[in-house]
Amino acid sequence: MPGTYKFTELVGTSPVSFAEAVKAAVAEAAKTVRHMDWFEVVSERGRIVDGKVQEFQVVLKIGFKLERTP
Amino acid sequence: MPGTYKFTELVGTSPVSFAEAVKAAVAEAAKTVRHMDWFEVVSERGRIVDGKVQEFQVVLKIGFKLERTP
Amino acid sequence: MPGTYKFTELVGTSPVSFAEAVKAAVAEAAKTVRHMDWFEVVSERGRIVDGKVQEFQVVLKIGFKLERTP
Amino acid sequence: MPGTYKFTELVGTSPVSFAEAVKAAVAEAAKTVRHMDWFEVVSERGRIVDGKVQEFQVVLKIGFKLERTP
Amino acid sequence: MPGTYKFTELVGTSPVSFAEAVKAAVAEAAKTVRHMDWFEVVSERGRIVDGKVQEFQVVLKIGFKLERTP
Amino acid sequence: MPGTYKFTELVGTSPVSFAEAVKAAVAEAAKTVRHMDWFEVVSERGRIVDGKVQEFQVVLKIGFKLERTP
Amino acid sequence: MPGTYKFTELVGTSPVSFAEAVKAAVAEAAKTVRHMDWFEVVSERGRIVDGKVQEFQVVLKIGFKLERTP
Amino acid sequence: MPGTYKFTELVGTSPVSFAEAVKAAVAEAAKTVRHMDWFEVVSERGRIVDGKVQEFQVVLKIGFKLERTP
Amino acid sequence: MPGTYKFTELVGTSPVSFAEAVKAAVAEAAKTVRHMDWFEVVSERGRIVDGKVQEFQVVLKIGFKLERTP
Amino acid sequence: MPGTYKFTELVGTSPVSFAEAVKAAVAEAAKTVRHMDWFEVVSERGRIVDGKVQEFQVVLKIGFKLERTP
Amino acid sequence: MPGTYKFTELVGTSPVSFAEAVKAAVAEAAKTVRHMDWFEVVSERGRIVDGKVQEFQVVLKIGFKLERTP
Amino acid sequence: MPGTYKFTELVGTSPVSFAEAVKAAVAEAAKTVRHMDWFEVVSERGRIVDGKVQEFQVVLKIGFKLERTP
Repeated sequence: MPGTYKFTELVGTSPVSFAEAVKAAVAEAAKTVRHMDWFEVVSERGRIVDGKVQEFQVVLKIGFKLERTP
Repeated sequence: MPGTYKFTELVGTSPVSFAEAVKAAVAEAAKTVRHMDWFEVVSERGRIVDGKVQEFQVVLKIGFKLERTP
Repeated sequence: MPGTYKFTELVGTSPVSFAEAVKAAVAEAAKTVRHMDWFEVVSERGRIVDGKVQEFQVVLKIGFKLERTP
Repeated sequence: MPGTYKFTELVGTSPVSFAEAVKAAVAEAAKTVRHMDWFEVVSERGRIVDGKVQEFQVVLKIGFKLERTP
Repeated sequence: MPGTYKFTELVGTSPVSFAEAVKAAVAEAAKTVRHMDWFEVVSERGRIVDGKVQEFQVVLKIGFKLERTP
Repeated sequence: MPGTYKFTELVGTSPVSFAEAVKAAVAEAAKTVRHMDWFEVVSERGRIVDGKVQEFQVVLKIGFKLERTP
Repeated sequence: MPGTYKFTELVGTSPVSFAEAVKAAVAEAAKTVRHMDWFEVVSERGRIVDGKVQEFQVVLKIGFKLERTP
Repeated sequence: MPGTYKFTELVGTSPVSFAEAVKAAVAEAAKTVRHMDWFEVVSERGRIVDGKVQEFQVVLKIGFKLERTP
Repeated sequence: MPGTYKFTELVGTSPVSFAEAVKAAVAEAAKTVRHMDWFEVVSERGRIVDGKVQEFQVVLKIGFKLERTP
Repeated sequence: MPGTYKFTELVGTSPVSFAEAVKAAVAEAAKTVRHMDWFEVVSERGRIVDGKVQEFQVVLKIGFKLERTP
Repeated sequence: MPGTYKFTELVGTSPVSFAEAVKAAVAEAAKTVRHMDWFEVVSERGRIVDGKVQEFQVVLKIGFKLERTP
Repeated sequence: MPGTYKFTELVGTSPVSFAEAVKAAVAEAAKTVRHMDWFEVVSERGRIVDGKVQEFQVVLKIGFKLERTP
């Protein structure tokens, strides 16, 4: 992977699972970031309401290639 | 979130997924702990039997608000 | 668990979820390793293609019992 | 320090400083726990409202001596 | 907290205390970032001049909600 | 290990060795906790008096099964 | 270093060495970021092709001063 | 120590102490691995039965020299 | 910062705050160490007496320049 | 990267630099391992003789694809 | 523990156990350091010769009180 | 390696590479410390001036044998 890559760190959320929380964050990032290549999970958390898991939260770093400006 | 919060550390188990293991621990905790607000995943493990994953295990810390005794 | 155990460190992959990535690695390991007892998740990553999560990757250590050679 | 000690993990909060957040947690714990000896800071966080720090939060573990029941 | 959140990592400085260094970073960030929700302390350092602490420095990550572009 | 497990974190002490400090903590915990299954060492410390090790201290987490209340 | 600083996290690559990978990332960042002051290495990796190291990769955080907008 | 070394990661067990658990793992490894030079403790755990420590477990990495095949 | 620097690791104490504990350690070190440049906080702890925080303790590393002996 | 990958952990050595120590380990591994894809640096050490660095040592994990046995 | 404390980091060795390795380091330090109060284990390692553990090594930090020079 | 060893923690600097920064620190330490045996890299950093890497900095711990005073 020649070139230089940059990380952006996000928190994705989902009422269903950790995998869906990752997908939600990547989908949101795709609106403004191009050339995303990989993600790394930093930590996993969630919210509890009325004694039940209401939301899964995943902190993740997304790596994407910097486009060289000629 | 004014006030003081306490952590309890549990291990949830599920034959299906890490998310289900979290839900199982929270459901069990809900029997005795009130005011649970969030959880944080500490580590993920599992058991293998006859060459197949039999059980997903998630160590998690659950944060809940201490009720002030007036 | 008397006896001596050994770890092998693998990366499982799945287009579906982290749990499936774990299962894939364990299934692959089962072809050559016997007496597998448990796994521990080391880290979770994944690949992004065209702005979508294409693959979940889980680095895991699998513990198995060493068979004593008499 | 002969004897056996136990940890309880809390989150203290304060609008003023990290030190005050620690004090708040210890004061709250003192209502139910005796023989507290020391604390260890696990992490420091806080809440932001309208672009300003509204609350300092300190996760801390408090060590206290177990009373032997004769 | 449904939605997607993003982290920005800053270093705040203050001649007075760690809490003031956090406040300084948040105040500076507030000039360009909206919807900030929480911060997490990464590390604490400082500068010494002529045998005295001249400056407290706090590395912190600030989490803020991404505004969905409809 | 189906079911939900809980951790309690203790500090055991012994003038002899780290292993004895672990045993002391487990023996003390056994007075009030049932169904203890395993322990994990968190850190090892000790006290020095008059230039000699007077006490070994082991911080450990003990995992035990929660009894379901039907 | 009075003022507020910000981190950007990059991955530099080089076929030669870790030091050259750092230089490549800093040179690329210099095209858009001003007032860069220091870097911190987060991790070091690389790619292997046909049994030989083809590329050194360094994940690094670069600190730069935020310009106050008057 | 010129040359290339390899790690193998094991779990040794002993009813007596952590040191004996290390010795047991090294003795077992010696049956199949030559040129072992050093070990590093990764973590220490154990099993509790009927309120007593039944087994000390040490996860350790053993370093040994690879024999060059001429 | 050309040249070579050395670290000394201290524990400062204060009944008031973490910042004051840092200052106390730096002031004490200034009696014997010259050319101190920066400090890094390693951990924060404290002592509790009669249910109240009696002392804040900060473990910190102080970096200072080695004077070349010509 | 569909499929399952495995890690092997090595220590490479070189009298010249960390990069050369990595290359030495990869070259040695290439004699017996096929399909190596990437490496990750775990830690860096070295040996000192007569007040000079005699050897750079790099602990690294090498990832390679497992060949499916049909 | 009012006052300022300093750490010295040592490696103790013993052919017998980790506890004895700690004792050996403390005994050696006692020849030149006064007012030692506590130690903290940083890591545990050892040497293997002819397939047997020849030496246990413990890296530890020793804390001692700085004597105020009036 | 029977006997007791001590660590000293330094920061070496070099305009060229991380390896040279290590060498610089070891060379400086050799002026006052005897019996140095090994070093361990703690972290790697550097300084940026005018958009270019001006200096590589390596924090390292150097282990040396304590000479027994008979």
